[in-house]
Amino acid sequence: MAVATQSLEEVCINSIRFLAIDAVEKAKSGHPGLPMGAAPMAFVLWDRFMRFNPKNPSWFNRDRFVLSAGHGCMLQYALLHLTGYDSVTIDDLKQFRQWGSRTPGHPENFETKGVEVTTGPLGQGIANGVGLAMAEAHLAAKFNKPDCQLVDHYTYVILGDGCNMEGVSGEACSLAGHLGLGKLIALYDDNHISIDGHTDISFTEDVGKRFEAYGWHVITVDNPNLDEDTKLDAVHAAIEEAKKVTDKPSMIKVRTIIGYGSPNKRDTHGVHGAALGGDEVSATRKELGWEYEPFVVPEDALNHFRKAVERGAGYEAEWNQILAEYKTKYPQEAAEFERMTSGTLPEGWEKVLPTYTPADKGAATRKHSQTTLNALAPVLPELIGGSADLAPSNLTLMSVSGDFQKGQYENRNLRFGVREHGMGAISNGIALHTSGLISYCATFLVFADYMRAAIRLSALSEAGVIYIMTHDSIALGEDGPTHQPVETIPSLRAIPNLVVIRPADGNETSGAYKVAIENRNRPTLLALTRQGVPNLDGSSIEGVTKGAYILSDSDGTPEIILIATGSEVQLCVQAAEKLTAEGKKVRVVSMPSWELFDDQDEAYRESVLPKAVTKRLAVEAASSFGWYRYLGSEGDMISIERFGVSSPGGLAMEKFGYTVDNVLAKAKSLLG
Amino acid sequence: MAVATQSLEEVCINSIRFLAIDAVEKAKSGHPGLPMGAAPMAFVLWDRFMRFNPKNPSWFNRDRFVLSAGHGCMLQYALLHLTGYDSVTIDDLKQFRQWGSRTPGHPENFETKGVEVTTGPLGQGIANGVGLAMAEAHLAAKFNKPDCQLVDHYTYVILGDGCNMEGVSGEACSLAGHLGLGKLIALYDDNHISIDGHTDISFTEDVGKRFEAYGWHVITVDNPNLDEDTKLDAVHAAIEEAKKVTDKPSMIKVRTIIGYGSPNKRDTHGVHGAALGGDEVSATRKELGWEYEPFVVPEDALNHFRKAVERGAGYEAEWNQILAEYKTKYPQEAAEFERMTSGTLPEGWEKVLPTYTPADKGAATRKHSQTTLNALAPVLPELIGGSADLAPSNLTLMSVSGDFQKGQYENRNLRFGVREHGMGAISNGIALHTSGLISYCATFLVFADYMRAAIRLSALSEAGVIYIMTHDSIALGEDGPTHQPVETIPSLRAIPNLVVIRPADGNETSGAYKVAIENRNRPTLLALTRQGVPNLDGSSIEGVTKGAYILSDSDGTPEIILIATGSEVQLCVQAAEKLTAEGKKVRVVSMPSWELFDDQDEAYRESVLPKAVTKRLAVEAASSFGWYRYLGSEGDMISIERFGVSSPGGLAMEKFGYTVDNVLAKAKSLLG
Repeated sequence: MAVATQSLEEVCINSIRFLAIDAVEKAKSGHPGLPMGAAPMAFVLWDRFMRFNPKNPSWFNRDRFVLSAGHGCMLQYALLHLTGYDSVTIDDLKQFRQWGSRTPGHPENFETKGVEVTTGPLGQGIANGVGLAMAEAHLAAKFNKPDCQLVDHYTYVILGDGCNMEGVSGEACSLAGHLGLGKLIALYDDNHISIDGHTDISFTEDVGKRFEAYGWHVITVDNPNLDEDTKLDAVHAAIEEAKKVTDKPSMIKVRTIIGYGSPNKRDTHGVHGAALGGDEVSATRKELGWEYEPFVVPEDALNHFRKAVERGAGYEAEWNQILAEYKTKYPQEAAEFERMTSGTLPEGWEKVLPTYTPADKGAATRKHSQTTLNALAPVLPELIGGSADLAPSNLTLMSVSGDFQKGQYENRNLRFGVREHGMGAISNGIALHTSGLISYCATFLVFADYMRAAIRLSALSEAGVIYIMTHDSIALGEDGPTHQPVETIPSLRAIPNLVVIRPADGNETSGAYKVAIENRNRPTLLALTRQGVPNLDGSSIEGVTKGAYILSDSDGTPEIILIATGSEVQLCVQAAEKLTAEGKKVRVVSMPSWELFDDQDEAYRESVLPKAVTKRLAVEAASSFGWYRYLGSEGDMISIERFGVSSPGGLAMEKFGYTVDNVLAKAKSLLG
Repeated sequence: MAVATQSLEEVCINSIRFLAIDAVEKAKSGHPGLPMGAAPMAFVLWDRFMRFNPKNPSWFNRDRFVLSAGHGCMLQYALLHLTGYDSVTIDDLKQFRQWGSRTPGHPENFETKGVEVTTGPLGQGIANGVGLAMAEAHLAAKFNKPDCQLVDHYTYVILGDGCNMEGVSGEACSLAGHLGLGKLIALYDDNHISIDGHTDISFTEDVGKRFEAYGWHVITVDNPNLDEDTKLDAVHAAIEEAKKVTDKPSMIKVRTIIGYGSPNKRDTHGVHGAALGGDEVSATRKELGWEYEPFVVPEDALNHFRKAVERGAGYEAEWNQILAEYKTKYPQEAAEFERMTSGTLPEGWEKVLPTYTPADKGAATRKHSQTTLNALAPVLPELIGGSADLAPSNLTLMSVSGDFQKGQYENRNLRFGVREHGMGAISNGIALHTSGLISYCATFLVFADYMRAAIRLSALSEAGVIYIMTHDSIALGEDGPTHQPVETIPSLRAIPNLVVIRPADGNETSGAYKVAIENRNRPTLLALTRQGVPNLDGSSIEGVTKGAYILSDSDGTPEIILIATGSEVQLCVQAAEKLTAEGKKVRVVSMPSWELFDDQDEAYRESVLPKAVTKRLAVEAASSFGWYRYLGSEGDMISIERFGVSSPGGLAMEKFGYTVDNVLAKAKSLLG
């Protein structure tokens, strides 16, 4: 068929397809198959439904779009370009997947305006979408008035077979069904092909039925690639229908053909993740009657797409009017709304952070965390979060609020269920709603392993999620090695851009929260004890913000430095007292956060850990992995280089050498 | 009700309950709720169905039992004790959760004979169960003859709400449904309570319908705690029915009451994870008419349970007869069966490992892995595994075999779908079937994060799984930071008992497989390149087995040691040549595995990395995390301390400093 015979909509759809084909071809790398198959549904969604303003990608009330099947990013880049975003020019498309480009191999929110979340690792995007929809539901319940719908947008997700096979998507979608998130609409690109071949080699479940079991509204649409006029209407009708069902999330299962238009590669995994190759590109041009050169978009198609600019300006103007009205009628709420959505913390919020003296009764740092969280909850209405079914252990409930449940979205305590991975990805979605919400989530520290892919994405995508991880060492005791972190803390410290803090007492826990709340573009992970710890002399909020600091010192240059984190700092303090009484010159450094310490200037670092003092003993109830950077060749450590043991926690600590006597013995051995 | 009025079966069930109650009470720690509620179904299963031999827990053809809800381990310990296993005496029960006991806080296969897999982290056990059932299906298809059913057992799993919320269970169960594993029977302890309270706060999906969507056969049974005689029959009938459905796995959804028998705590989360307390224990004794002292089992109950000993001896004797007949009729297959199940590798298997010289064309180590795997596949029929939908990228198909599919269980290529976490847990199950099977699984290295909880359990539970992880650095290129490992290798090295190997070329890849195949009680993870690397002079299989070795050396004591792994070794080799030409004394150490090197004696380690040589430069396309242990205070490193970038791989490597010139420059700077 020739272009002349194509409807404008077909030309638009083919424009998406060929931008994808051409960009992948030029890069000699990428995934053309998804954009080619999903272009019709994406066109209907972006052209007929989605409300956004290309000239202001961060307009608050925009519909959120997530390409959960992130490998198909050329679909998204093509749409961003076609609808008039400045972030993706035609030159950017020509730079697809090149060093320094704004069009990386998977969508990255921190590189490309208009991209909401970073996807690619499968299943994360749909779970982020659940978080985005939860954020919208919460803010709508919080701010909207019967006469003023200030917060009112949809979250649309396109996901593929891969996303639907991943457990993380199941976890998040089960919760979305439970919560009845009616404004979450997912389009499932059901193309029956994955990298290994046809999905019938490993994925024959009834996905629609599974989503119905989760409590979703499921709609099935036949292949819109074929007979496009009719089928576009079917997609259109499905989205209409989905929008009408307001008490359930909707899944529109759209049967597509991967690589549609490629005569020899369509419907095969060969078109999934590699350029078509010159011959097949030509054949595809012929098949689809596409007579344009690479990267050329027919003018009428571009004009049609670019109507989004005017439309978007209109949407935003309309909303600005609502906001103006809201400001007049509800000045107090409006002020709160504007403060929050601008990302400004309330003046003096940090004054509520509790402080302690050694006279104050000691407590577990998870308990201090509870106290701090509950001190912050009233002054930081943007705090929203919860635990993966361990609230009574993680101590993460905010007593000022009820549970966020279906129809009670104004509440801030989230009940994630036993779904750590989904929890992390949802928390990323809430954080990346960019409305000032501060999301936190919680589980036992060892189960960071279940959600590590989401934690990594927090760090990569600059989502300021707070991870509250309790039961942070073998001292948790009887639950045994399956529950006892040993290598967990080092493995988290290894993640770039993640701040790990292991506070030693009450003041340090307050310090950890100060850092975490201020870290709006960087996730913070708190490692907290199950067991009680004393409040230490000299501990401080400020010390934590520097990562490591001198807790007690000798007169003059110390002969030895004892370095510890969290529950082991007290052992060093006591050992130092004994050593000092014996005439030794001892410094104790509390080091709650390596990352924060590394961020300090060299003068500060040298002042805490002078190079000249080579006798250093580190004490941490974890693996020594990574510690030698601070210990040098002459240092030593009390660490655990094996898995833990089921036993009462105190005894386990003793058996593994976490006693004042052992610190003393090791220190003396270093001192010679 | 008084004991006198209780049926023998009720007394048996209450014996389980009170052993759990009393052990938790004595330990002042543990989870009494599950054993109290699930005792009836577990009794029916163990007493009326399960075939095992308490006096030979490793009898090959035993039914496998997995308590996926591992926190309820007192249920399993009570049953092991009552049915006559020597591994759990009454004294062991009194030592529940104590240092050095055989009854740790969660079931550990390496501590307690009769426990098949290590559970506790939720969802893992049911996924292990899928692996156990796959192992059985494979061995049955491989060895059974129309007249000789040598391999023929069920896999039974008890799982709870928590397991069903976890994504890993969904992944594995979707695959189990696809594969139609008819001999996998799961009993779902549907007690509606999790730690946060009633499951209706976060988990309201229709679990039965979801499993039907997966292709499972689902049966619902009302509460067997009430009116036990009738309800036990209902459980009995359900298991009978499940056994009759041979082409689908079965899920028996049993409505139970957590903490059944506790008048004040039953049906609350208070009974989930804490001792009942003295008063409530008394009240429960009264409620259930239990007049025995703690840890006392009524004689008639014990006698009844212990019939399992005679029954088990009978089962084994019967099977021994089948085996004897099999040996007579099928001597060759029998020899293979006995070799495999004894865990003996075939004589001379390692002779097929390919070796290379520098004249051999270079290739990606993933390609060498493919060659090696396919060299091993014919001589090691116990090799079984596959990829999480990345077979064409991971290169993990064995060409001698077809796909393991429903009805084609004799094949050895597993198609896991995009289910990394499920894949890891399934691979653990296959390995822990203890029938000699060597399971391997594969994905991109960065997605180790998705399956980390399973990898940790491989290491903890001594499962010799082989993880084949390709695309091991930023050199993978265009897919960008979501796909580029940076901190992944260090984070894996941190896991105790896991051997991580990053081979540099063909010989080292062969060496990596030699180690991996021999590591039958320790998992091995191979980090393999996407891009080609040359075959190096001096590389060797033996070198890999020592973890690190001298690849090229200077005359006399070196002035500097260049240490590298994998694809960066070649840079050091080239840099060393240039430095040598300039009259410098340079040693190049290839260090494919830290763990293997650490296992060597000090003399060897000193011979490779002499303490006196303090100028050391490490080169690895990853984070430096952990490297300082080998570099000392004066060492330096070329590393990546941030996330990667979407770009062609060669350019990315150059931009991040992985060039011969940069190695030279850094080395010269160290040399001063």
